[in-house]
Amino acid sequence: MIQQLINKIQKTEAPIVVGLDPMLDYIPEQIKEKAYKEKGETLAGAAEAIWQFNKGIVDATYDLIPAVKPQIAMYEQFGIEGLIAYKKTIEYCKEKGLVVIGDIKRGDIGSTSAAYAVGHLGKVTVGKNTYKGFDEDFATVNPYLGSDGVKPFIDVCKEEKKGLFILVKTSNPSSGEIQDKLVDGKPLYELIGEMVSEWGREHMGDSYSYIGAVVGATYPEMGKILRKLMPKTYILVPGYGAQGGKAEDLVDYFNKDGLGAIVSSSRGIIAAYKAKNYEKFGPEAYADASRQAVIDMREEINTALVKGGIK
Amino acid sequence: MIQQLINKIQKTEAPIVVGLDPMLDYIPEQIKEKAYKEKGETLAGAAEAIWQFNKGIVDATYDLIPAVKPQIAMYEQFGIEGLIAYKKTIEYCKEKGLVVIGDIKRGDIGSTSAAYAVGHLGKVTVGKNTYKGFDEDFATVNPYLGSDGVKPFIDVCKEEKKGLFILVKTSNPSSGEIQDKLVDGKPLYELIGEMVSEWGREHMGDSYSYIGAVVGATYPEMGKILRKLMPKTYILVPGYGAQGGKAEDLVDYFNKDGLGAIVSSSRGIIAAYKAKNYEKFGPEAYADASRQAVIDMREEINTALVKGGIK
Repeated sequence: MIQQLINKIQKTEAPIVVGLDPMLDYIPEQIKEKAYKEKGETLAGAAEAIWQFNKGIVDATYDLIPAVKPQIAMYEQFGIEGLIAYKKTIEYCKEKGLVVIGDIKRGDIGSTSAAYAVGHLGKVTVGKNTYKGFDEDFATVNPYLGSDGVKPFIDVCKEEKKGLFILVKTSNPSSGEIQDKLVDGKPLYELIGEMVSEWGREHMGDSYSYIGAVVGATYPEMGKILRKLMPKTYILVPGYGAQGGKAEDLVDYFNKDGLGAIVSSSRGIIAAYKAKNYEKFGPEAYADASRQAVIDMREEINTALVKGGIK
Repeated sequence: MIQQLINKIQKTEAPIVVGLDPMLDYIPEQIKEKAYKEKGETLAGAAEAIWQFNKGIVDATYDLIPAVKPQIAMYEQFGIEGLIAYKKTIEYCKEKGLVVIGDIKRGDIGSTSAAYAVGHLGKVTVGKNTYKGFDEDFATVNPYLGSDGVKPFIDVCKEEKKGLFILVKTSNPSSGEIQDKLVDGKPLYELIGEMVSEWGREHMGDSYSYIGAVVGATYPEMGKILRKLMPKTYILVPGYGAQGGKAEDLVDYFNKDGLGAIVSSSRGIIAAYKAKNYEKFGPEAYADASRQAVIDMREEINTALVKGGIK
């Protein structure tokens, strides 16, 4: 799956993943009105609105991008109905040929991580049959419990030819409270980066490992160090745009082959029609605004990569 | 909710939480056969088997225990159908007067943690209405992203009078790979313990905070230190029984008031009928075996607490 992701990045010339993190506030009124008319102002109504909103954005952007990253929390907040919309979104994105990165940030003790891995990336056995629960292509994983909490995910990825992005340095303001603490003179995120790199060496695709890392766009100096520390690791880079990450900051997350990083943007793309730059599209054409935002983001990143000598 | 939990612990004289982590392997054949006959060897069939199994255990133990702790991963592995069984289990346990600790180990950047908090502990707004997604009483939280990933959970708990157990030192063998690393000469779990204690001081119930901690039974030396470091923090102690934690090891997790800790056992109770000690019950009476295992665990812990001078 990592090679499939790389192929699609090369084909689209867009090292971009669109974060499908739909807040109800992002969804244009006409979509909410229609959904609530059909299903009421209920969890099912909210889930229908989310699904229709996502579908519009996917239809308008799937030819431009390699991958999407639905954030499961944004669905889970609507309970079962929300999770049905999450699953439906995954299925639809896969039909459209997109690679799906489930932003689930799960992680637990071994037997429990195995259950998460099976439910999101693998197959569960019931009697003589096997079933796929959510069936994302990649998942994000929290490493705080150590290797026995991560290994079950790696095992399932190996079997299913899928992949992971393990949290190394997250994009949020307080990520340093734990992740930056010095351990033997080195920040903890470097230690975790070394662990990820080591797991990656044992689980290689053609040119990159299918065990990737998450490093926030908001910490470019750390991204530069982590890039060197994890040469064969694909880096998922959240925090671009709305969270403050800029295109020129991203250059050091890439390798000299022009690969090695995929940049995530959520609000900046899915709620583009609400931003000054794209307000001319209006809520009816929200998906066209998203398409334009993807084109602009691709341009920004590629320009920065050319300037930075990467492309 | 923390005071309600304490009241129930005092009333039952059982500082015990039963982990409802049903693996299909734990479930007696007669329950699986009936469920598969009704719903096929499908995800719905598995979910029905889990639900009937849980119901049997809850019916046989609810008068003896203060709380249950369903591990969401064990349900999530069966996709949507599994999560419906998770929700049904929560609702039933609450009907029976049990406190429900959702072992969800969520944690993300601020806005995303807020969505998890709303979905599991709070209410989500759809138009003019509000809904509860899963509605656990407590949830476990992973602190790896720092305070801005934890605060949204605390805010919802404050509003809803619910509570958290934040991972400090987990029970699994490799938890030390990250959690034991020395930071300024002190292990990371102590640093997190201090953070939890600080959050707790600002969010007090009557005698204990509603911001608790998770400290594994498998690391009693560390439990002893953390107990002192977090005097007003309730400690959820997993790892008892099957994972290796013993009753005499647990004494130091309690305060001199006989409170301050609640010990979780999952396999040792829900799959008791499969263990040598309880095999006389047989699979048909699996729930009676679970009841006996709860009575024995209560006895073991209370005996250890008396010997340890806590009771």
